[in-house]
Amino acid sequence: MKPGSLVCFISPDGKVYIRIVTDDKELHTHHGKIILAELLNKEYGDTIKTHLGHEYLITRPTLYDILKNIKRKTQIIYPKDIGYIVLKLGIREGTRVVEAGSGSGSLTTAFAWFVGDDGKVFSYEKRKEFYDLCKENLERVGLKNRVVQFLRDIKEGFEEHNADCAFIDVKTPWEYLDQVVRAVKNGAPVGFLLPTTNQVSTLLSCMEKERFIKTEVLEILVRRYKPVPERLRPEDRMVAHTGYLVFSIVKK
Amino acid sequence: MKPGSLVCFISPDGKVYIRIVTDDKELHTHHGKIILAELLNKEYGDTIKTHLGHEYLITRPTLYDILKNIKRKTQIIYPKDIGYIVLKLGIREGTRVVEAGSGSGSLTTAFAWFVGDDGKVFSYEKRKEFYDLCKENLERVGLKNRVVQFLRDIKEGFEEHNADCAFIDVKTPWEYLDQVVRAVKNGAPVGFLLPTTNQVSTLLSCMEKERFIKTEVLEILVRRYKPVPERLRPEDRMVAHTGYLVFSIVKK
Amino acid sequence: MKPGSLVCFISPDGKVYIRIVTDDKELHTHHGKIILAELLNKEYGDTIKTHLGHEYLITRPTLYDILKNIKRKTQIIYPKDIGYIVLKLGIREGTRVVEAGSGSGSLTTAFAWFVGDDGKVFSYEKRKEFYDLCKENLERVGLKNRVVQFLRDIKEGFEEHNADCAFIDVKTPWEYLDQVVRAVKNGAPVGFLLPTTNQVSTLLSCMEKERFIKTEVLEILVRRYKPVPERLRPEDRMVAHTGYLVFSIVKK
Amino acid sequence: MKPGSLVCFISPDGKVYIRIVTDDKELHTHHGKIILAELLNKEYGDTIKTHLGHEYLITRPTLYDILKNIKRKTQIIYPKDIGYIVLKLGIREGTRVVEAGSGSGSLTTAFAWFVGDDGKVFSYEKRKEFYDLCKENLERVGLKNRVVQFLRDIKEGFEEHNADCAFIDVKTPWEYLDQVVRAVKNGAPVGFLLPTTNQVSTLLSCMEKERFIKTEVLEILVRRYKPVPERLRPEDRMVAHTGYLVFSIVKK
Repeated sequence: MKPGSLVCFISPDGKVYIRIVTDDKELHTHHGKIILAELLNKEYGDTIKTHLGHEYLITRPTLYDILKNIKRKTQIIYPKDIGYIVLKLGIREGTRVVEAGSGSGSLTTAFAWFVGDDGKVFSYEKRKEFYDLCKENLERVGLKNRVVQFLRDIKEGFEEHNADCAFIDVKTPWEYLDQVVRAVKNGAPVGFLLPTTNQVSTLLSCMEKERFIKTEVLEILVRRYKPVPERLRPEDRMVAHTGYLVFSIVKK
Repeated sequence: MKPGSLVCFISPDGKVYIRIVTDDKELHTHHGKIILAELLNKEYGDTIKTHLGHEYLITRPTLYDILKNIKRKTQIIYPKDIGYIVLKLGIREGTRVVEAGSGSGSLTTAFAWFVGDDGKVFSYEKRKEFYDLCKENLERVGLKNRVVQFLRDIKEGFEEHNADCAFIDVKTPWEYLDQVVRAVKNGAPVGFLLPTTNQVSTLLSCMEKERFIKTEVLEILVRRYKPVPERLRPEDRMVAHTGYLVFSIVKK
Repeated sequence: MKPGSLVCFISPDGKVYIRIVTDDKELHTHHGKIILAELLNKEYGDTIKTHLGHEYLITRPTLYDILKNIKRKTQIIYPKDIGYIVLKLGIREGTRVVEAGSGSGSLTTAFAWFVGDDGKVFSYEKRKEFYDLCKENLERVGLKNRVVQFLRDIKEGFEEHNADCAFIDVKTPWEYLDQVVRAVKNGAPVGFLLPTTNQVSTLLSCMEKERFIKTEVLEILVRRYKPVPERLRPEDRMVAHTGYLVFSIVKK
Repeated sequence: MKPGSLVCFISPDGKVYIRIVTDDKELHTHHGKIILAELLNKEYGDTIKTHLGHEYLITRPTLYDILKNIKRKTQIIYPKDIGYIVLKLGIREGTRVVEAGSGSGSLTTAFAWFVGDDGKVFSYEKRKEFYDLCKENLERVGLKNRVVQFLRDIKEGFEEHNADCAFIDVKTPWEYLDQVVRAVKNGAPVGFLLPTTNQVSTLLSCMEKERFIKTEVLEILVRRYKPVPERLRPEDRMVAHTGYLVFSIVKK
């Protein structure tokens, strides 16, 4: 395993830690510490022992693992929504995607994950605190090099004029529709995340049918089950709402 | 636009066609025909006219567009589930993923989309009809080169022994758990799709806790809204069920 | 069985008919006709034969049976919502409940069913067509005597000033809040049904916190399963939306 | 207000207490005490003061209020399910309904509420603790006289042979199908509540098609919204599961 590789540690009781392989740091677990330099002689799928002798499984982190371990100061965008957004925006290797705001960086991370080294994520955030948090979260998982971060209010517009797609997660996205349209290619897919029905109504009323076609509104719900074969049943409670997703195609 | 590029045509009334740029074919629409060779002088975001003068928007297809336009003979796996599966399995450029069965190839297509030219999808199918359909669907969108297809019953095992992850969408997955475990790396994420609660129970009861850790069961629901700003409300009916998803980590 | 009794006929293939016992009419089924006068010698639980010899089961109709067999010209209120409304409004024998509009009379029927001979339903409807339809539906099931119908716009107010509760199912309920408050006792529960989020927002913004306390908004979803023991799974599609329910307590 | 009347007290901050009017007791609230004998000079809709001068609104409790205030030692059946059960079983004044087990008595209370003084609820419970709790809950709300309680295992059968309907909420209802069939009239609706899919499958497999017709399986979900007009959105979390409902018609 090379320095810089991303590693997921799974404890005997199923707890997950994510770290980058380095030659000088330690991971402190509830079962004792692990010397990260020892990873240099390991492969994904190997196990590693804490100084107290507990065996941890080493795996290559999935995007889901990474998203679950992100440091957050706000409501993050959930995997259930991120997976769908990635498909709707056509994200793949080489994609150039514009995003605002960065927030804690969960969607930024997912975009960076999929665009590869040939793509780029342009992520805008006006609050310094979140700009820094997003940066920290990207660096922790080695994806910072795929992201160009801007500490800027999108009222002033985006730097891009030919992006493949855009995702807008700000309180009043209807105030920036001109900016969004200018930032992307003709025919580009754009998405929005909004927590309230009032925001969805306002946004829809501002998306003129000449510029935004094939507009869709939806929400995604995940219902989990207790994995007990002889007493299979949904969990008692579930996340009932994170936000409404709005998708459209820009027509210039 | 180069020959071989994938193109999405959006009609004035929002209908979507997907084709590959070639120099010798025509697209027949309900507004007249389009000469595909004309695309060689176009870019994504341009428009193109049918021989009857109707203007079509040319865009780069998203994965969602492609999945919606797949030829199907079975229930396909839906985008709502695919997005989540991709995150849970950690699919990215370079991933080597095993899949059974191929079915119509919707999940195969999604995996091929994300693994890039350095990754590979190993897709198993025992019914010739679906093997062929999956191939056809992959070729239509230029992703066949990233997929190795096998016309084979997985009872005989998988060729791979070190895959990064696996997804199993067959009727009785519990009969092939040994094969699945052998196909992937230690610590690899695996997923299953099952339409009935009985199948979920049987599968769970066969996944011994020594070999399968962090097992989860869930289902994903998409609820769509009519995009009318002054009368925002969910659509009257929705897809209520496609299947239950089971995810786990293999521990050898 | 006495003349005037309400009877449910269940055909060998599960089709349900509802009729009142009379001595001079026939029920025409897809298995031939049944002479209703023959019911005078029957009890609930007996069977009766069509003139072609097919055996029908005679049962006492449930409220659910009746609601499913109502003649409708509009979207009716569904059993899933009606059951909850009845509990929230405190409907029971003796209750005096105000309702607007009558619509096809499904909620009117349910209220009449539960208030008994000592209670009363005051049902307002401004469209003659629905006033008549509601009347017809009530008469068909022998509940008309418990309902006082008004062909009147509720802008002019309700006749009642001391009702136990009220349910309002009109397009712009916020225009009639004064009338509603005047119609019921202090502390009375009131309910509203609204199809769109915009209407819910408008209603909530008009319900001043001094007059309407303990306000709640909710929706009820029913998910049906295919009753196949060895392949238990939800039905493929479901009703995704009928309306939002708003409940509150009037404080004068 | 007469002695024995049931009263709901609503505090200035929306807390609800339910009591029976008596001439010798006090209600202790977080705003001070209320002398229940003072209710004798009050009507529903009046207010009453605590000894500290706080004004409480006096209302006639709805069934929903009562169910929310039941003393519970088990998972109770929820209003969302109870409303639907009442409609499906055809409960009304005069109905004679059989129930097992009594549990904390929430469904018993609802049945007693609707059957009136001419109907009767026959409620079976084998655990003394719940038999007593159900009794206490019924007495607290003045509905005990409409219920005949049995402290008995239903393996021994029900006393009734001609009941209008039955509801079975026990762990292994499939063991008592003979008893249930014997307890009700031919053509009677019966219902079951089961928390797991395995129980639903087992029950369905034991309900022979000759004796149980028109069998349905469903679940009911309530999704609540924050009642804020300018920021309307679902609550963050919701109850995701209470149980599956099975309904059928007995054919002897």
